[in-house]
This record gives sequence, structure tokens and C-alpha cells, in this order.
Amino acid sequence: MLQGPDELRAAVDDYLARLSLAPDLGRLQESMRYALESGGKRVRPVLCLAVSEAAGGEVEHVLPAAAAVELVHTFSLVHDDLPALDDDDERRGRPSAHVAFGEGVALLAGDALLAEALRLALTYDDQGVARELTEATLGMIGGQFRDITGDDADLAAVERLKTGKLLAAAVGLGLRAARVPEDEQGPWRTFGDELGLLYQIVDDILDGDGFAERLGMEGARRLADEAAANAHERLAAIPFDTSVLRGLVDELAVRTG
Amino acid sequence: MLQGPDELRAAVDDYLARLSLAPDLGRLQESMRYALESGGKRVRPVLCLAVSEAAGGEVEHVLPAAAAVELVHTFSLVHDDLPALDDDDERRGRPSAHVAFGEGVALLAGDALLAEALRLALTYDDQGVARELTEATLGMIGGQFRDITGDDADLAAVERLKTGKLLAAAVGLGLRAARVPEDEQGPWRTFGDELGLLYQIVDDILDGDGFAERLGMEGARRLADEAAANAHERLAAIPFDTSVLRGLVDELAVRTG
Repeated sequence: MLQGPDELRAAVDDYLARLSLAPDLGRLQESMRYALESGGKRVRPVLCLAVSEAAGGEVEHVLPAAAAVELVHTFSLVHDDLPALDDDDERRGRPSAHVAFGEGVALLAGDALLAEALRLALTYDDQGVARELTEATLGMIGGQFRDITGDDADLAAVERLKTGKLLAAAVGLGLRAARVPEDEQGPWRTFGDELGLLYQIVDDILDGDGFAERLGMEGARRLADEAAANAHERLAAIPFDTSVLRGLVDELAVRTG
Repeated sequence: MLQGPDELRAAVDDYLARLSLAPDLGRLQESMRYALESGGKRVRPVLCLAVSEAAGGEVEHVLPAAAAVELVHTFSLVHDDLPALDDDDERRGRPSAHVAFGEGVALLAGDALLAEALRLALTYDDQGVARELTEATLGMIGGQFRDITGDDADLAAVERLKTGKLLAAAVGLGLRAARVPEDEQGPWRTFGDELGLLYQIVDDILDGDGFAERLGMEGARRLADEAAANAHERLAAIPFDTSVLRGLVDELAVRTG
């Protein structure tokens, strides 16, 4: 019996709450935990767990990889919120890390979250876990750079890096943890790409920029429906019970925050 | 025939100049290369290469690990120089990365340097390379945190984290790349610890703080001579040609910058 999104989310929250961080970090851990416990929807780790479970993996075995993806995501939020980048004082209704702990501490907390993510990824015998996470992180940083410098005329390409890479890695790490052979990963990964696109379009609809700006709200909504339909089509071609993933697609398609 | 420190330094500089960074990073690479090419003494990678060569390793094989240590060091300098931490406008006589490229770009460049360091470490079959580098990075970040918050009364402990961990990792990665069995690494690693202490005392003598403040200049100088003598003693107990490492100890003991 597969676990539903809410159960998977609870498993992620529980794992993160119990996660031991490097003792050398001392009280820097407080700011890291503050950022980690900010009550997000855990989209990436839940996706990672759901893919892994659908592919026959054990939730216990994939949790460290799922958490690693969430730590990379959290590192990027902490650094993005800094005055040097987006200068956001709030994150999900609470003071951002740099407002709560000071800029210097938030900077170091972000650095440490990235390093801890790699430490988690390195607990697997399969070095591909850490490699894939590192590559995705580099892509994400490249997307952030293009975003702040306007260094790329192609908005879709920027967003594919900024958010798509890490979502795709969530799928990839789920497959690796479930030990799906590389030559059978194709359909799953294509699904991950469609889901990343869906996520981005809905983001833009909520923010009123990007795709929504370019295509208008209705056009963007149509594109989102199309991406959701494509994601479902990809799932239909996978000979496993993908019911939980279908639910995730629908959740992401209609999310409001 | 072992290569001397200058040859090893040239090998490091050459390797770093040719290093390919993730294409996804786009023009962020420029700021990363700027920071990497700041003309430092390459103490950590040269130490890594010298240890590996003395232990029977091939320079070609250890270069990625040595470069990874230097990338972690450079990441920490770029972030340390930011206004949120030390707010240093200059680094080795040139504008710091954030002065040359802006704060946001420097922040992302530091993040990317850390991720690239891990990518290099992950090119080895021995996952211990990436693990040791990650652990050292976490220790270093913990030391920086204690340094800015004054969160630790024990100055020596802070410095052991802040600079000692990465120097020790340089030794450790050199041993791993040379495939020295773990049960034969002890004497080398003890040497690394002594060298880290020496490095730190000389740093404090040059900056007039830390050990120099506590023991006075003469006292600190005596302690440095003692640490150098201890490092030589450790080397004498290692049944390999450690002549290049002896030269490095003497170089570090009398360095003026």
C-alpha cells in the first residue's frame, strides 16, 4: 500500500526534525533549523519519496536523499532572501533568516545547509546520488545568476535551470534510491521535466509574471492544463502504480501558494 | 624524483586555469575564475600534492582533489569578504569579488565554488574524498560562525575549526588519492595537525592577534618554532622521502604574508 502525499509530507517533516547536523556547527544549527522548519509544502522531497515508492523503493531508504534535496532548496531560499539578492524580509509569514539571525549568520547558515545536503547524499553507496544533486545545484545557481543579471533572453531557459533542475533531481534521486536501472529511468525523468514545467507555469500564474505576463492569465492557465495532461500521459506509460504521483500532479496544478 | 613546492604550485595554477566549470553557470564563471586567480600561495593544494607524492601517489591523480580543497578555500574567502561578514574591499591587492562583480554575484559565485569543489571531489571512486572534504567544510563554517558571534571562549578551538580543518583535509585527501591504507594514515594526519597549528600561530603573528595577543610576539614566535619542530619530528617518523614536506614546513614557519 503506497503512502499518500500527506503521509509522505509527515515523514519528511519528521525526518528533518530529527536530522542531526554536524556538531562542529555549534549554535549555527539554530538558524539552519529555523530555515528548515519554515512550514513549506515539501514539494521536492515528497516528489522524491513518491517516485521512489512507486518504483518499488523503501521510504526509509530514500528519506536522506529526499531531505538532501530539501536542504539544497532551503539553502537557496536563505541566500535568495538576503539583501544582496531579493532582499525579502519575510518568508512564509515569518521573518527571513537574516532578519531573525543577522545577515552574516544567514549567509553561513545557507552555506552549511548546502554542505549538509551533500553530506546526506554521500551516505549512499551510489555516488550518483551526490553527483546528481551537485549538478542540479550548479544548474540552479546558474539560473539564479541569469535571473539577477538578466543574462539570458530566454525566460523559459532561466526557469528550467532555477526551479526545473532541482525538481528533476528530486525525481532522479528517487529513482536512484529505488535502484531503478538507468536504461529504465527515461519515462520517469520525462515525467519529472513535465512536472517542472507545470510547477513553473503555476508559479508564474500566482506571481503574475513570466508565462502569465507573456501569454496572459488564460493562455498560461491553458498551458498549465496542457503540462498537467502531459505529466499524466507520461505516468500512464509507466507500468507501476503511479496513483500517488497522479495526485501530486493535480495538487500542483491547482495550488494557490 | 619528487617535485618541489614551486613546481607543485605551477601544476595547481595550471590545473585551475584549465578547469572546466559547469556550463549551466554561464557568465557566473567569470567571477569564479576572478576569485580563483587571485594569486594566493596555494598552501592547501600544494600540501595535498606534496603529501600524495611523498606517499607514492601520482600528481595527475591527486590534482582534482587538491583543486577541490582550493575551491573550498576560495569559496570561504569570497563569502568572508562580503559586507555581511568581514566587509573587506580588497583581497591580495585587488578588489574583492563583490566589489568587482556586485554582492549578489559574489554570493552566488561563492555558492558555486563550493558546489564545484564537491563535483571535483566526486570524480574519485573513493567516496571518502568527497566525505572528508564535506566534513572539513562544515567544520570551517562552524569556525567562521564562532568567530563572528564570539560563541566560543576558546580561541584555539575556533581557529582549529576555521583554518585547521581544511589544512587537515588537504593532508587527508592527499593520502586518499595516494591510496594510503587508513591504518597507516595516523602519522601523516598528526603531521597535518601540527602544520595547521603552525600555520595559525604564524597567521596570528602577522596579524598581531590571537596567539600573538595572548602570548606576546616573542612567546608566539617560540610557540611557532615549537610547532615547526614538532611537525619535523612527525615527518621524521614517516618512512618515506618527506623532503618536500620539510621544505613546506620551513616555508610556512617564516612566511611573511
